[in-house]
Amino acid sequence: MQRHFLQELETLKTNLIKMASFAEDAIAEAIRAVLEHNKELAESVIAKEQRINSLEIEIDDAVIDLLALQQPVATDLRFIIAASKINNDLERIGDHAVNIAQSAIKCAESATLQPLPHIPKMAEITQTMLRNAIDAFIRLDTALAHQVLKSDDLIDDLNKKIVADLVEVMQRDIPRINEALELIRVSRNLERVADLATNIAEEVIFTAEARVVKHRAPDRQ
Amino acid sequence: MQRHFLQELETLKTNLIKMASFAEDAIAEAIRAVLEHNKELAESVIAKEQRINSLEIEIDDAVIDLLALQQPVATDLRFIIAASKINNDLERIGDHAVNIAQSAIKCAESATLQPLPHIPKMAEITQTMLRNAIDAFIRLDTALAHQVLKSDDLIDDLNKKIVADLVEVMQRDIPRINEALELIRVSRNLERVADLATNIAEEVIFTAEARVVKHRAPDRQ
Repeated sequence: MQRHFLQELETLKTNLIKMASFAEDAIAEAIRAVLEHNKELAESVIAKEQRINSLEIEIDDAVIDLLALQQPVATDLRFIIAASKINNDLERIGDHAVNIAQSAIKCAESATLQPLPHIPKMAEITQTMLRNAIDAFIRLDTALAHQVLKSDDLIDDLNKKIVADLVEVMQRDIPRINEALELIRVSRNLERVADLATNIAEEVIFTAEARVVKHRAPDRQ
Repeated sequence: MQRHFLQELETLKTNLIKMASFAEDAIAEAIRAVLEHNKELAESVIAKEQRINSLEIEIDDAVIDLLALQQPVATDLRFIIAASKINNDLERIGDHAVNIAQSAIKCAESATLQPLPHIPKMAEITQTMLRNAIDAFIRLDTALAHQVLKSDDLIDDLNKKIVADLVEVMQRDIPRINEALELIRVSRNLERVADLATNIAEEVIFTAEARVVKHRAPDRQ
């Protein structure tokens, strides 16, 4: 029974890493599609959403089975509940990748705006946050999780800068309003991905330290 | 033990209803703040976010306790897991209310745009979806949950119309670009609230029928 439980827990971890890598790839490819005006790449991100959704359901089912059949307590219980939430966060990141890909398709049609220097930077930080949050969960590394929390302010600043730049573009260049609007949508979706990476980091701290940093973390003030 | 378990389950339900009513009020007030250019009301929505966040943590703790101490199985287990996810969805709805309130504050400063007829309609449908999703969960009423799923397409259409109208405003009236942008943000936040209401409805069907409609529901195609 105990060995079986440990095996199932290991499978849950492996599937969560797989889910995270799908979500990470989706964001990376969607952003590349925006920057390179690559419609085909954007379409492939949308097509691949299904595998993220299927894996989410698989992980959800595994969590229910683990809780029902093994009735874990203490640390294991907290780990499994955290895994379930992180699973949900990753699926939402997949949704944001699809939103970004949809904007990439619309921008690819016009493809007139200079790529904004802040968007690649924002994408890079967001992807690092996501990777660190998942690594922190797998290794229960709270120091790394705290590092993720600290990056969130950076992202909020970049988002504000990008929106301000694009509003300026809109004001002086009416035909580019639609395109600028799509890039604002890209920026806001990246901001949401960073928020979700922050959620994951908070779950890690909660799991490791059994206390809730959510809505209370001084790092986020 | 059994009576104690039923009591805790009842408390969980009561707290979730309270959480839903906080989230509903926040959305209603944020939208009213937008439509009435009421900065004070918007500020009060932002101030009241804290009580939603605190209640989320309280419910989360209750879920962990229920799972650890009572080790529920079958229907009860599924209900508790669903409650945990819905709790998270409601907290996110609170976040969207804050976003809408922030836009209300920015729009209140300009207050020049005619209120768009589609925004109140969209807000009304979204609020009904949210109310029905929570009622469906409490009564495990799958018919009502399916009704929520059907409304989601309506919301997507309204969002598209609102964005198109506002792009037109931007094109012909440059000084109103910032304001129009905030209203697009309001519309997109409402769309996300409707998505979260849809998530809740899917959880209801999952809990009641023990099958996953998520990502598979024909109603959403």
